[in-house]
Amino acid sequence: MGPAHCTEKKEDRVCYAYDAAASAYLPDAVVFPQNAKQISEILKLANEERFAVIPRGAGSGMTGGSVAVRRGVVLVMTRLNRILNIDKNNLIAFAEPGVVTGHFHKAVEQQGLFYPPDPASSEFSTLGGNVAECAGGPRAVKYGVTRDYVLGLEAVLPTGEIIRTGVRTAKGVVGYDLTRILTGSEGTLGVITRMTLRLLPLPETIKTITAFFDKIDAAAETVSEIIRHRIIPRTIEFMDNASIRCAENYLNIGLPTEPEALLLIEVDGTEAETASAVNALELLCLSLGAARVETAKTKADAANLWKARRAVSPALFQYGPHKINEDIVVPRSNIPDMVRKISELRDKTGLFIASFGHAGDGNIHFNIMLDKKNKTELEKADAAVDALFDYTLELGGTISGEHGVGITKSPYISREIGSAELHLMKKIKVVFDPGGILNPGKIFPE
Amino acid sequence: MGPAHCTEKKEDRVCYAYDAAASAYLPDAVVFPQNAKQISEILKLANEERFAVIPRGAGSGMTGGSVAVRRGVVLVMTRLNRILNIDKNNLIAFAEPGVVTGHFHKAVEQQGLFYPPDPASSEFSTLGGNVAECAGGPRAVKYGVTRDYVLGLEAVLPTGEIIRTGVRTAKGVVGYDLTRILTGSEGTLGVITRMTLRLLPLPETIKTITAFFDKIDAAAETVSEIIRHRIIPRTIEFMDNASIRCAENYLNIGLPTEPEALLLIEVDGTEAETASAVNALELLCLSLGAARVETAKTKADAANLWKARRAVSPALFQYGPHKINEDIVVPRSNIPDMVRKISELRDKTGLFIASFGHAGDGNIHFNIMLDKKNKTELEKADAAVDALFDYTLELGGTISGEHGVGITKSPYISREIGSAELHLMKKIKVVFDPGGILNPGKIFPE
Repeated sequence: MGPAHCTEKKEDRVCYAYDAAASAYLPDAVVFPQNAKQISEILKLANEERFAVIPRGAGSGMTGGSVAVRRGVVLVMTRLNRILNIDKNNLIAFAEPGVVTGHFHKAVEQQGLFYPPDPASSEFSTLGGNVAECAGGPRAVKYGVTRDYVLGLEAVLPTGEIIRTGVRTAKGVVGYDLTRILTGSEGTLGVITRMTLRLLPLPETIKTITAFFDKIDAAAETVSEIIRHRIIPRTIEFMDNASIRCAENYLNIGLPTEPEALLLIEVDGTEAETASAVNALELLCLSLGAARVETAKTKADAANLWKARRAVSPALFQYGPHKINEDIVVPRSNIPDMVRKISELRDKTGLFIASFGHAGDGNIHFNIMLDKKNKTELEKADAAVDALFDYTLELGGTISGEHGVGITKSPYISREIGSAELHLMKKIKVVFDPGGILNPGKIFPE
Repeated sequence: MGPAHCTEKKEDRVCYAYDAAASAYLPDAVVFPQNAKQISEILKLANEERFAVIPRGAGSGMTGGSVAVRRGVVLVMTRLNRILNIDKNNLIAFAEPGVVTGHFHKAVEQQGLFYPPDPASSEFSTLGGNVAECAGGPRAVKYGVTRDYVLGLEAVLPTGEIIRTGVRTAKGVVGYDLTRILTGSEGTLGVITRMTLRLLPLPETIKTITAFFDKIDAAAETVSEIIRHRIIPRTIEFMDNASIRCAENYLNIGLPTEPEALLLIEVDGTEAETASAVNALELLCLSLGAARVETAKTKADAANLWKARRAVSPALFQYGPHKINEDIVVPRSNIPDMVRKISELRDKTGLFIASFGHAGDGNIHFNIMLDKKNKTELEKADAAVDALFDYTLELGGTISGEHGVGITKSPYISREIGSAELHLMKKIKVVFDPGGILNPGKIFPE
């Protein structure tokens, strides 16, 4: 690749030692390949010389998926950043993994098309990272997650072969589904170098509603009641009082800080459709105890609300230098139970706990802010996470909706995945990566 | 399982020797298990004694996926036929694999819910078979295929372990995606014993349009033009003149037999939405050369049209004792090219060729009716299929949209799937089935 795209300087290695999970592991080198062939050569060399290779998009992952826990070479994919084609006739696009998701959104929307997956990090995270983690986001309620938009992939196997999986058509069932086994495999089975993505027509209209609740239980009940009424908004986001205060403190946009919770609900479709959905949702929220329901009058108003919602996660650092952030999912009808459990944990531990997230699909981001140097706090926090995971699984949920396992959740994976299933997954890993060189130390507990 | 659920009688074995691909392979025995534990014991025994086990739903598969090509024991799954729960609050259902798809449709629709996958065989095919093949159907244009509705599975591995995969929630990314590697694996990686399926709210209204075209090219162009206008009907079905005549001959429902092609288009949604979509579609079809466009006035009229569409496949046997039936898919914008190619092949070979199918997603069912005892006809037909597959792949398509590979397409798989990818798939097969006892002789060419 030439010396310009390969570095062993300490100051460069430090820059690529962390991701959003905020644990630093210094790699031995950082390389910036430009194509599949270079990646293939690096991986072949890694097998010969037995060093680890860790693929990395923008480093915005929440579970340490792209950090060099076994040293080795960080493979930064950001130079593979071309949108190769947006095919309006077939509603598909071909893109490289280093394309920033938000840029891709804009590019397809300019052509009247729509790529639904929208992780909160979309302004900086990459499509390749999104596929590797099977990223979700608010719109998953109606539109599903990244997996549902990946039709095919080009990937470099850990052994260096370049493979092509899937199809570019709406249907295709020839052979085993390599596309979906790679999707969500957290960069442990192959390095994605090209993607065929499914697009939809851009919805005509979007309407944004905010419902404020004096009682958090009422907000939680409303979420499941909306689904029970068979209304599928494109998002149903939830913020508890701590999250509301946190966003308002940070942005000063005039959010009322007294309500125990708010729901940020969006519907899309034709003008007539959205008008009638807004009507139904307003009535439903009010009848279930909302103190106030507002419909955003302008795009700028709606954008402001989303700015508040997206600000919560970074703004939480006002309340402590460290964050423990979990993205559990429970069946939608159990959101009220989970909200009560979180209140209990807050009362019991005295910790600063904020919860917010994609309530529409049962995906709650549970955040504890603390100073990890304070041993007592850390112990309490670990115990709270422990209790939370157990309760999540008891309700039939999962310990990760969209962030993956990485390193932060690997100690807990065997609570959710049985030993026969884990054994099978490990054998699949060996089939793809007999040398164990690709992103080692992730997902599976040691 | 007791002698009542296990038979070695020749007359029973003959009944389970075939599927809809119509090649017979006599198994050594037929068993009718009732639960996962029995299946586990059978599979363990099969590994000890080295006999083949072939899972089978209703035997309606089109590619020989459930026939006993290496003898052994046919595992008939139809006694596992309970719908365990339809959860309206979370829009999911739990079901056993032997449930007939059409029964499941009715059961969820009675509760105002909707399970979109609708293979033409849905009145007799089973959910388990649908998952094993990743069945599609007309509604895939808008709603996707079976894969998009499988959240989780219980399955018995070929080695006898009972595993649970996936989640019951809308999101979930813990570990590798075993759910989707099992889906579409054609009964070669595990025996599905329970499914968690995603449901949608039942659309309020459905409207059905028929557009008749004097020129087949105009019909094909209309399909891609609809998508280009970013209208996504729930179905866009296509029938060529041979298919129209065939259905009319069989049913006598008054279809005009002169048009070169018809499109059967359905839209769903609210009353207002469907009304405006029908309007737009009528204008579009007429502007692109439709001679006549009709909207079904009653549910009975619409049902009649679907009866005609579904009758084509069985009714084709009026034109020859044997059928060669391929389910190629091409990018939607290439449907006109494919339609021209099929006309060329018809002119060149003089064979009876009918094509129809799910044009909305580029999935065309190409049927040659012939007498296989006539060697000249058979050679011509084989050459036509050969040319068709090559052209399909040249256009960026796939040789199977929903029927799978089974035995009838395994000689062709390496035209679509590269050797590194095939090698990987075979190694995955060995991980799941080291003894090679589950449904051997399928998918991979010998």
